[in-house]
Amino acid sequence: MAYRAPVSEYKFLFDHVVGLDKVTGTDRFEEATRDVTSAILEEAGKMCEEVLAPLQRNGDLHPARLENGVVRTSPGFGDGYAAIAEGGWIGMAASPEYGGMGLPYSLQNAVNEMMGGACLSLQLNPLMTQGQIEALEHHASDALKDIYLPKLISGEWCGTMNLTEPQAGSDVGALRSKAEDNGDGTYAVTGQKIYISWGDNDFSENVCHLVLARLPDGVDGTKGISLFMVPKLIPDADGNPGVANSLKVVSLEHKLGLHGSPTAVMQYDGATGWLVGKPHGGMAAMFTMMNNARLGVGGQGIAVAEAAYQHALSYARDRKQGKTPSGDAITGHADVRRMLAQMKAETFAARSIAAACAVAIDMSTATESAEWKARAALLTPIAKAFGTDIGIEVSQQGIQVHGGMGFVEETGAAQFLRDVRVTAIYEGTNGIQSMDLVARKMMDGGEAAYALIDEIEAYAEGVKSSHPDLAEPVFNAAETLRETTEWLVEQDLNDRFAGAVPYLRLFARVLGGYYHLCAARADGEGSARWKLANVYLHRLLPEHVGLAAHVRRGAADLYELTDEDLAA
Amino acid sequence: MAYRAPVSEYKFLFDHVVGLDKVTGTDRFEEATRDVTSAILEEAGKMCEEVLAPLQRNGDLHPARLENGVVRTSPGFGDGYAAIAEGGWIGMAASPEYGGMGLPYSLQNAVNEMMGGACLSLQLNPLMTQGQIEALEHHASDALKDIYLPKLISGEWCGTMNLTEPQAGSDVGALRSKAEDNGDGTYAVTGQKIYISWGDNDFSENVCHLVLARLPDGVDGTKGISLFMVPKLIPDADGNPGVANSLKVVSLEHKLGLHGSPTAVMQYDGATGWLVGKPHGGMAAMFTMMNNARLGVGGQGIAVAEAAYQHALSYARDRKQGKTPSGDAITGHADVRRMLAQMKAETFAARSIAAACAVAIDMSTATESAEWKARAALLTPIAKAFGTDIGIEVSQQGIQVHGGMGFVEETGAAQFLRDVRVTAIYEGTNGIQSMDLVARKMMDGGEAAYALIDEIEAYAEGVKSSHPDLAEPVFNAAETLRETTEWLVEQDLNDRFAGAVPYLRLFARVLGGYYHLCAARADGEGSARWKLANVYLHRLLPEHVGLAAHVRRGAADLYELTDEDLAA
Repeated sequence: MAYRAPVSEYKFLFDHVVGLDKVTGTDRFEEATRDVTSAILEEAGKMCEEVLAPLQRNGDLHPARLENGVVRTSPGFGDGYAAIAEGGWIGMAASPEYGGMGLPYSLQNAVNEMMGGACLSLQLNPLMTQGQIEALEHHASDALKDIYLPKLISGEWCGTMNLTEPQAGSDVGALRSKAEDNGDGTYAVTGQKIYISWGDNDFSENVCHLVLARLPDGVDGTKGISLFMVPKLIPDADGNPGVANSLKVVSLEHKLGLHGSPTAVMQYDGATGWLVGKPHGGMAAMFTMMNNARLGVGGQGIAVAEAAYQHALSYARDRKQGKTPSGDAITGHADVRRMLAQMKAETFAARSIAAACAVAIDMSTATESAEWKARAALLTPIAKAFGTDIGIEVSQQGIQVHGGMGFVEETGAAQFLRDVRVTAIYEGTNGIQSMDLVARKMMDGGEAAYALIDEIEAYAEGVKSSHPDLAEPVFNAAETLRETTEWLVEQDLNDRFAGAVPYLRLFARVLGGYYHLCAARADGEGSARWKLANVYLHRLLPEHVGLAAHVRRGAADLYELTDEDLAA
Repeated sequence: MAYRAPVSEYKFLFDHVVGLDKVTGTDRFEEATRDVTSAILEEAGKMCEEVLAPLQRNGDLHPARLENGVVRTSPGFGDGYAAIAEGGWIGMAASPEYGGMGLPYSLQNAVNEMMGGACLSLQLNPLMTQGQIEALEHHASDALKDIYLPKLISGEWCGTMNLTEPQAGSDVGALRSKAEDNGDGTYAVTGQKIYISWGDNDFSENVCHLVLARLPDGVDGTKGISLFMVPKLIPDADGNPGVANSLKVVSLEHKLGLHGSPTAVMQYDGATGWLVGKPHGGMAAMFTMMNNARLGVGGQGIAVAEAAYQHALSYARDRKQGKTPSGDAITGHADVRRMLAQMKAETFAARSIAAACAVAIDMSTATESAEWKARAALLTPIAKAFGTDIGIEVSQQGIQVHGGMGFVEETGAAQFLRDVRVTAIYEGTNGIQSMDLVARKMMDGGEAAYALIDEIEAYAEGVKSSHPDLAEPVFNAAETLRETTEWLVEQDLNDRFAGAVPYLRLFARVLGGYYHLCAARADGEGSARWKLANVYLHRLLPEHVGLAAHVRRGAADLYELTDEDLAA
């Protein structure tokens, strides 16, 4: 069935749930009027439906491959990429000074989701470039910006991130790649990097690698790491692609899914690179890139959840099997209906959290407010981990709705699961996200968390008198979250880590309840969103009790169980 | 890493958790002494580790394929099958009269799990044959038994089940295949069947299809369906494979996983068949086959959970990444430890439930007791659905433990998920299992459920004074289950169906708590099982609160949400 971009859903979210008017009311984003926003969502939606969605199966059936050192991409991907670039969708949020549109990140986030729902493996390419644009905007010298930003924003060149090495995955500080000063303003970068998404392609003029490596005087660990721009083709005096750099794609991974996206092992042999940011300041620069990339990956999960849901709903509405209390199709069976309703309710929850995070990022950019920065920082790991977990869970349920057909590849239901599975792993595993939430994001003693919980409780309080059946579950769950947070911030780090994943889930559960409540109230009693909120609040939100108990268990019992006990 | 068959785990379960001594204390199974049982588990375990486990990747990398109408199986599968057949593992529980060992089903169930953990796609073959043996033992004429049972039990011939047609999946009664009386004691069977696991192979002398079809005077629906034995090669007067029957494999499915198992579309064109059971009594005969096959499929889920757990643990013990509070390997990280502990605790819970179900089946066989029959009937859908759900969940966590390597196919972590995914679908989807639990299995007004809850509460009561921290969570969760059951049996069927899946999960959660408690008590304070029980009881069992709330929501809210609302 054809993918339908969630254009009206985003309009509703912006107007009634996450308040984009806050963002467009700032000087920085005043040009993003409601008309502009609508036009952009509609135009992007059209491109996703018409150009990108037809490519989704191509990527799966005809994976990117390496031929004599050259990456050949899946059929149609070159045209799809050209459409993305020509539409200006890569540089939507980038600085107009270099050709970007300077639009709110909230809009880019929405368009990214649509592109991901249409064709995830291709969408990952501009997502990487967007992260690189942002890192360069914040950390590169003017000289580098002048050369690279216009090309990246126009899409003529693509960007990649090179962090991981075989012995340095989640522990980036263990990396061994080296950089030596050439004495002419350039550096010689040497090392092997793995899991490089879109490490090469056959449709962009150049591929620009941001590579983490250690200078000779760099200390061990993350504090001794620097960031370098290492282009595939070295720009000549006019800024056009020149001679080939000393780097190559060694191999492509054979993966569970996302076959259209070439995942490369990259080898740098004294490749010419330019320092981005300060010496030994690589991690700070990389974090800029990673934070928004994390939200972007959360959006990938939501994108697949939306697509898998549409796919399953379409199948279920056509499929007849047995007698149901309502209609011929299997949507009439209570259990199938439960699955579909859950899929839709979870997708809404995850999307709202991501959209709220994007608004917080825009408000940080527009106002430099410490509160908004803290809000964005708090919501980023939740948006990433919950969005991708929901992507996996909704894809799983999508397969289940299909019955036997779900296991047959031709249906396409299984591809969603295979493609989305990696999103819970890359850009920091969901375990890492959860640890980030309970450690770094709680260094304020829980202040940012309490501010958000206050907001939720105040809102629920306001709805309580008129609609206690909707408001009370949200208020009560928020109270549980508050108590759990109060407990959490008093614990040692490792006791927090032991409950980090259920804590993040608990937080997301409550946030989902809050946004469902906002949507129900805005859409009115008896509306579709009202009914969907009912499903979420009374079937899924009650999970908060079990999650809170899990969090409060601490770490001790896990260590009492020795490695030998685990192997027994 | 090498698969290690859970031999000692089964010995412990039999001795201390599910009480196999009840079974071996009956006249029927008195020959299955503790020594016999041990020897069988060990011998089967050895075969699984040495012969079957090395085939697991072969099946994935070199799928079964159809060449000019002939199925070619994966490299080594013929030898693996021969080892299974020669070991007598197919007919372990079959009647000695026809060459079987007459052993308890509990033992067969354990060996099936081990074979499935070693190589799931090959194990599915004898699992199907075992179901066929049982159906023939119960329903076939002596003439048919004499021809088929010895060959099936020895493994010279294989058996399949043919239920599904494109328009008749979960709704078996909608099938259109026909059978006409040839007037010579045989029938002409015509129709197309889909999803036929191991519909053909190149290593057995013959393939025996049990096919559901409708006689000319068969009414619509399940009451007009009859069961036929339709062999690939028609046995001659001496019972040896003779002329080819009018049937063929039309195509094989291209599936998400389980590539080593050929899933066939079968075409019957007036094929010669023999009636099994009474005319129009096909569903009754099929149910015999299906009930134990359901437990067998639950065992497949547990098998994969065990294998995926071992695989992930082995990786985690080798992998070094970052500083941990305990040792160099990533098992020292609290979040990784949490995942591994959960995986192990869930696998134990699912395996105990399946083993308890197998014991109930054996007690039914040995004593014809109505209580044991009701217990077996109650536990079967729980063992199937929970076992396979845990298979999926543990495989998912196994991928997560591997980090980026989990998404790379060479690691093998992803194969577990791909292979096991279908187990939640075939032999009745897990939704169907849940509906069976809340409807058919509650036709007694909940009597069988209450009997089991009584048993759990009495046990927990007995442990309370000495170990309240372990016993109280079990007792309280059992009370929640009792109250939820009391509510459930008062509802209309469709209100039950709307909460069927969370109800089954709730039941499984409580049972898991019960068996963990038994294990902890038997193994003693501070033992590995004690510590694992602690993890389950305080981290996972608390989910029961949210599940109970979900169950009690009924169906109304799901139907208020119209198809149009779902598509909005």
